Amino acid sequence: MLEITKTTAEAVPEALEVAKSMEMSTEALNYGMDALFTANNVWMLLATALVFIMHLGFAGVEAGFTQAKNTVNILFKNTLTPVIGILSYALLGFSLMYPEAEAGFWFGFDGFGITDRLNGMSFEYAGGSYTRWTDFLFQAMFAATAATIVSGAVAERIKISSYLIFTVIFVGLIYPIIGSWKWGAGALDAMGFYDFAGSTLVHSVGGWGALAGIIILGPRIGKYVDGKVIDKPGSSVPLATIGVFLLWLGWFGFNGGSVLSGDPVSTSFVLVNTSLGACAGALGGFITGRLVFGRLDFGMVLNGILAGLVGITAGADVFTPVESIIVGLIAGVLVVLAAVGLDKLKLDDCVGAVPVHLVNGVWGTLAVGIFGNAANGTPMPFLPQLYGVVICGLAAFSSAFIIFFVLKKISGIRVSAQHEEEGLDSHEHGIRGYTIVYDE
Amino acid sequence: MLEITKTTAEAVPEALEVAKSMEMSTEALNYGMDALFTANNVWMLLATALVFIMHLGFAGVEAGFTQAKNTVNILFKNTLTPVIGILSYALLGFSLMYPEAEAGFWFGFDGFGITDRLNGMSFEYAGGSYTRWTDFLFQAMFAATAATIVSGAVAERIKISSYLIFTVIFVGLIYPIIGSWKWGAGALDAMGFYDFAGSTLVHSVGGWGALAGIIILGPRIGKYVDGKVIDKPGSSVPLATIGVFLLWLGWFGFNGGSVLSGDPVSTSFVLVNTSLGACAGALGGFITGRLVFGRLDFGMVLNGILAGLVGITAGADVFTPVESIIVGLIAGVLVVLAAVGLDKLKLDDCVGAVPVHLVNGVWGTLAVGIFGNAANGTPMPFLPQLYGVVICGLAAFSSAFIIFFVLKKISGIRVSAQHEEEGLDSHEHGIRGYTIVYDE
Amino acid sequence: MLEITKTTAEAVPEALEVAKSMEMSTEALNYGMDALFTANNVWMLLATALVFIMHLGFAGVEAGFTQAKNTVNILFKNTLTPVIGILSYALLGFSLMYPEAEAGFWFGFDGFGITDRLNGMSFEYAGGSYTRWTDFLFQAMFAATAATIVSGAVAERIKISSYLIFTVIFVGLIYPIIGSWKWGAGALDAMGFYDFAGSTLVHSVGGWGALAGIIILGPRIGKYVDGKVIDKPGSSVPLATIGVFLLWLGWFGFNGGSVLSGDPVSTSFVLVNTSLGACAGALGGFITGRLVFGRLDFGMVLNGILAGLVGITAGADVFTPVESIIVGLIAGVLVVLAAVGLDKLKLDDCVGAVPVHLVNGVWGTLAVGIFGNAANGTPMPFLPQLYGVVICGLAAFSSAFIIFFVLKKISGIRVSAQHEEEGLDSHEHGIRGYTIVYDE
Repeated sequence: MLEITKTTAEAVPEALEVAKSMEMSTEALNYGMDALFTANNVWMLLATALVFIMHLGFAGVEAGFTQAKNTVNILFKNTLTPVIGILSYALLGFSLMYPEAEAGFWFGFDGFGITDRLNGMSFEYAGGSYTRWTDFLFQAMFAATAATIVSGAVAERIKISSYLIFTVIFVGLIYPIIGSWKWGAGALDAMGFYDFAGSTLVHSVGGWGALAGIIILGPRIGKYVDGKVIDKPGSSVPLATIGVFLLWLGWFGFNGGSVLSGDPVSTSFVLVNTSLGACAGALGGFITGRLVFGRLDFGMVLNGILAGLVGITAGADVFTPVESIIVGLIAGVLVVLAAVGLDKLKLDDCVGAVPVHLVNGVWGTLAVGIFGNAANGTPMPFLPQLYGVVICGLAAFSSAFIIFFVLKKISGIRVSAQHEEEGLDSHEHGIRGYTIVYDE
Repeated sequence: MLEITKTTAEAVPEALEVAKSMEMSTEALNYGMDALFTANNVWMLLATALVFIMHLGFAGVEAGFTQAKNTVNILFKNTLTPVIGILSYALLGFSLMYPEAEAGFWFGFDGFGITDRLNGMSFEYAGGSYTRWTDFLFQAMFAATAATIVSGAVAERIKISSYLIFTVIFVGLIYPIIGSWKWGAGALDAMGFYDFAGSTLVHSVGGWGALAGIIILGPRIGKYVDGKVIDKPGSSVPLATIGVFLLWLGWFGFNGGSVLSGDPVSTSFVLVNTSLGACAGALGGFITGRLVFGRLDFGMVLNGILAGLVGITAGADVFTPVESIIVGLIAGVLVVLAAVGLDKLKLDDCVGAVPVHLVNGVWGTLAVGIFGNAANGTPMPFLPQLYGVVICGLAAFSSAFIIFFVLKKISGIRVSAQHEEEGLDSHEHGIRGYTIVYDE
Repeated sequence: MLEITKTTAEAVPEALEVAKSMEMSTEALNYGMDALFTANNVWMLLATALVFIMHLGFAGVEAGFTQAKNTVNILFKNTLTPVIGILSYALLGFSLMYPEAEAGFWFGFDGFGITDRLNGMSFEYAGGSYTRWTDFLFQAMFAATAATIVSGAVAERIKISSYLIFTVIFVGLIYPIIGSWKWGAGALDAMGFYDFAGSTLVHSVGGWGALAGIIILGPRIGKYVDGKVIDKPGSSVPLATIGVFLLWLGWFGFNGGSVLSGDPVSTSFVLVNTSLGACAGALGGFITGRLVFGRLDFGMVLNGILAGLVGITAGADVFTPVESIIVGLIAGVLVVLAAVGLDKLKLDDCVGAVPVHLVNGVWGTLAVGIFGNAANGTPMPFLPQLYGVVICGLAAFSSAFIIFFVLKKISGIRVSAQHEEEGLDSHEHGIRGYTIVYDE
C-alpha cells in the first residue's frame, strides 16, 4: 500500500490556517451582525423621526382647517399633545402596552443608573433589530398620535384644561391597554386579529375618542342653523396642505417602521402600497367631492389622502399593489360620504377626524379580512377583523365618553359662548395667530 | 523515513474545525450581504422620502410666489401632481422607462398575487443594492417632479382640467420615453451622454414643458402693459421660503439617491457638491439681483439656490468641489438674466420655472462637458452633452407643445378673463386660500 | 501501532476546503466592514440633512415671532446664513476647527482634482464610521447654526450688510477657533471639559454673540416706554410653530449625529434623552409661563421646547432619562425667567435667543457636572464644565462685541429710524412678506 502521509512541516501550517480562518469568520460574523443591527436601528430611529413630524402635520391640518381666531389655541394643544404623550407613555404607557417585556421602562431599571444605558437597555429586541430605547421612542411617538386625532375634532370650543387631562388619561392609559390586546400579545392577538400598523389600534381608537368628544361637546355655535350647515372657513389652506404632506411623509415611518426592521423587501413593499393607497385616496376624494359638491373640493382631496393612508395601514403588508389602490379609492369615497353624514347628524367635527380616522380605520381593518393574504398565500380571515373593530371600538368609545362625561360634570368641558364667538386665542392665550395686515 | 501521520483522534477534530469554519463564514457572509443590502435599501428608501417632500417644496414655492386669489388652485394642482404622477408611472411609465428590466411593473407579475412580494419582487437590483419596489417608488417620485415644474409656470390662468390631462400624458408617457434614452440604456446612453441625476432628463424636460405651456397660454392679464412689466406679488414669502428649503432638503435624496446605493464615498461626495452648488447659486443670484435690480432681491436668492441645485445635478459626481461652486455661481447669474430675458419676450412664467429648470438644466448638462472628469480622471466629452441637450429639448418641447396645442383646440386651456381677474379659488374651488383677517 | 493516514484523495479536498473557507471569511469580512461603514455613513448623512433643516426651523421661528413688516428681511438673513456658513466653513472653518486632521479641506488637496474623491477623501474617519466628506458637511451645518442664533436676537433693526459681514467672521473664524479648543482636541479637551453636542460650543457661543449684538444695537424703537415693555406681536404663530417642530426634528440629527456613528445603543439612548428633555422643557415653560404671566403663554411653551433641547445637548449621553427630564424642566423654567430678566435690563431680544441658547447652553453644560456620569459610572467633574463655560463665554462675547463695535464705528449697524418704523421689507427688499388681503 502506497501511503502519502503528512509531515509535521505540512500539518502545522494547515492547522494555523484553520485557526486563522476561524478567527476571521468570527470577526466577520461580528461585523456582519453589528452592521445589520446598525442598519435596522438606523431605519427604526429615522422612522421614529418621521412619525414625530406627523405631530407637526396634525398641527398644520388642524390649524389650517379651523378659524383664524382659534389658531393659537389649536397649536397650543397640538404642541402639548406629543409633550404629554411622550412623558406619560414613559411614565406608564410603555409598560402597560408591552407587559411581556422583561421590565417596564420606568420602574424596571434600578433608579435609571447610567449603567442601564450599557447593560439593561442594550438588549436586542425582536431578533436583534433595534434597541429597547428605540422601541420606546418609536412607540411613544405612535401613542401621542391617538390623542392628536381627537384634538382636531373637538377644536374651537373645548376647554384646554379638559383636553389636556383627557390626553394624559387617553395616551397614558386607554391607548396602551387597548394596544396591548394585540401588540402586547393579548387576547385579540390570540384570536387572529390583524392590524399591521394601527388602522384600528391607533386611528380608529383616536377616531372613537373624537366621536365621543363631539357628541358630548355639541356643535360650534352657528354651525347648524335652520337645517343648514354653515361653513366655517379655515385660516390657511397652505398650512393644511403642509400638514397633509407632512403626514404622508410621516407615514413612511409609521408604516415603514412598523416592519420593525429595515428588511429591504418588506419595508419597500409596504411603502409602495402606502403610497398607492394615499394616491388612490386622493383620487377617490377628488372624484366623490366633484360628484357630491359639484366643485373641485380641495379639502376632500387632502382628506382623501389621509383616508387612503389610514385605510392602507392595517394591511399594508398583506395587500397587493392593485388591492392597495382599491382600498385607497374606497377610503377616498368613504371620507366624503362620512363627512356629509356627520353633518346630517349635526355632529360637528372641525377637521374631519371621524371620517378620516374612525371610518377609514374601520374600513382598512375590515379590508384586511376581504383582500389580505398572509405571507404564505392563505387569505386572512374576516371575523377576527370584525371582532377587533367592535371590541376596540367599544372600549375606546366608552372610555373616552366616560372621561369627557366626568370632566363635563366636574368642571365643564366647553368654553363660554362669548369666548367661543370672540375666539379662544385672545381669551386664553392673549395673542393672535396672525398679525399680518399692514396698516398702510 | 520518519513519518508523522495523523491518527483519527487528531484528524477528526480538525475536519470538524474546518467544517465549522466553513459554516461560520457562510453565516458571516450572509449577515454581511444582508446588512449591506439593508443599509443600501434604507438609504434609497429615505432618499425616496426626501424626493417625495420636494412635492411639498414645489407647492410652497408656487403658492408662495403667486397671488393669494389663486392659492387653492395652485395647491390643488401641486397636490394632485404626485398623485397622478405615481399612479400613471405605476400603470405605464416605469415599464416604458426601464424596458431592459425583466418584467414591467404593472403587467409583468401575474395578477399581483401576494407571493410576488416574496418572489417576483425580491430580486436584487443593481448589484444587490435595493429592491425593485424601492426602485419603482424612487423613480415614481422623480417622474412626478417633471410635471410639477410645469405647473408653476402656467399658474394663475390655466384650466385645471387641461393641466391634469397634460400631467397624465407628460408623466406617464413623455418623461419615461425620454428618460429611457439615457437611464433605460437607450441611444443617448450609447452615445456617451451623461446626466447623473437629471439636469436634462428631469429638470430641462420639465422646463421645456413649462416653456411650451406659457407660449401657448400667453401672459396673465395685466402682466405686460405699455412695455412695462407689472409685478404680481406672491401671497407669502415665508411659504416660498419653506418651499425652497424643502427642495434643498429633498435634493439630498434626489442627488444622493441617484448614486443608487448608500456607498459612503460617492453619496457624501455628491452631497458636498450639491450643497456647495446650492450655496454658490444663492450667492450668484444675490449679487446679480443686486446689480440688475438695485435691491436685495430675495426672490433671486431663493431662485438662485434652486438654480444652483439644478445646475449641479447633471454632474454632482464628476465635478470637484471648486468646480461645483463655479457651476453654482454661474447658475445663479443665469437665473436672473433668464428671468429678465423672459419678461423682455413677454413670456410670463409666474415662478421662474424656465430660468431655474430649463436654463440651468441645460447649463448643468453642458458644464459636465466643460468641467467634468470621469472616475478614472479622463475629461468628459462635450459633444454628447450638447447632443443630449438638443435631442431631449426638441422631444420635450415639441411633445408638450403638441399636447397643449391639441388641448387648446379641443377644449381651451385658459380660464375666462373674469375668472382670471377674480381669482381661480372662488370660481373653481369655492374657498379662499387664507381667511385670516380679523373682523374687529 | 495502528495508523490511519490520509491519502492524497483525502488530504487535497481538505486543503481546498480550508482555502475556500479562508476566501469566504475574507469576503464576509469585507462585506461586514463595508456594510457597517455604509450603515454608519447613512446615519451621519441623514443626521446632516436633519441639521440642515434646522435652518428652516430657525427661519420659521424668527419670521414667525417678528413683525410682518420685517418678514422678508428676516428670511433673507436666515437663508443667506447657511449659504455663507457652508461656504466660509469650507474655505476656512473646517481646517481651523480640526487642525489635527491630516489636511485642511480647502487647501490640502492638490487642486481638488477629481481623483481626490477616490483617494484623498476616502480615508476612513473615527474608526471607519464615515467619510471625510460627510464629516465636513455635518460640521458645516453645525457651524452655520451659531450665526443663525444671533440673527433672531438682532432682528428688525440691524443693517443687513453688517449682519452678513458679522456672519462671515463669526462662522468662518470665531466659531471654529472656539470649537477647536474642545472638539479639535485642544486645551479645553485636555482639561476634561465635556460638551457632547454643543450646549456651549454651538448654542452658548451663538447666544453670547446675540447678547453682544443686542447690547450694541439697543432696543427697537418703542419697545421700552415709560418703564413698560411694549409687545411687538409676531407675524405668524403657525410659522413659529413649524419652526420649533422642525428644530426638534433637526435635533434628532444634531444630537443623534454627534454620536459620530450609527451605534444602535448610543444613538437611541441619546435620542430618548433628547426627546424627554424637550418635553420637560415645554412643561417647564408652560407652568412657569402660567405662574408668571397668568395666561397659557404659547411662546413660552415653544421656547421651553427649545430650551429643553439646548439644555440636554451637552450631556445627552451622560444623563439618565430621569435626569434628562430634570434638566429639561429647569431649562423651561429658566427660559421664562431669563426672558423677564432681559426685559428688565432693557435688552431687546426679538425671539428669545439669549434665554434659549445662552442661558440654557450654560445651564446644560453645568448640568453635566452636576448629574452626568461617564460610561464607566464615574461622575463627571464640575469644575472643568465651569471653566469651559467661562472661557468660551469670554471668547465668544468679547469677539462678537468687538466685531459689532468695529462695524458700528465704520459703517453703522442700525437702520434709520424711518426704515425701522416703516419696516425693512419695503425699504431694503422692495416686497412684502405677505400679500394675502382680498380686495373684495
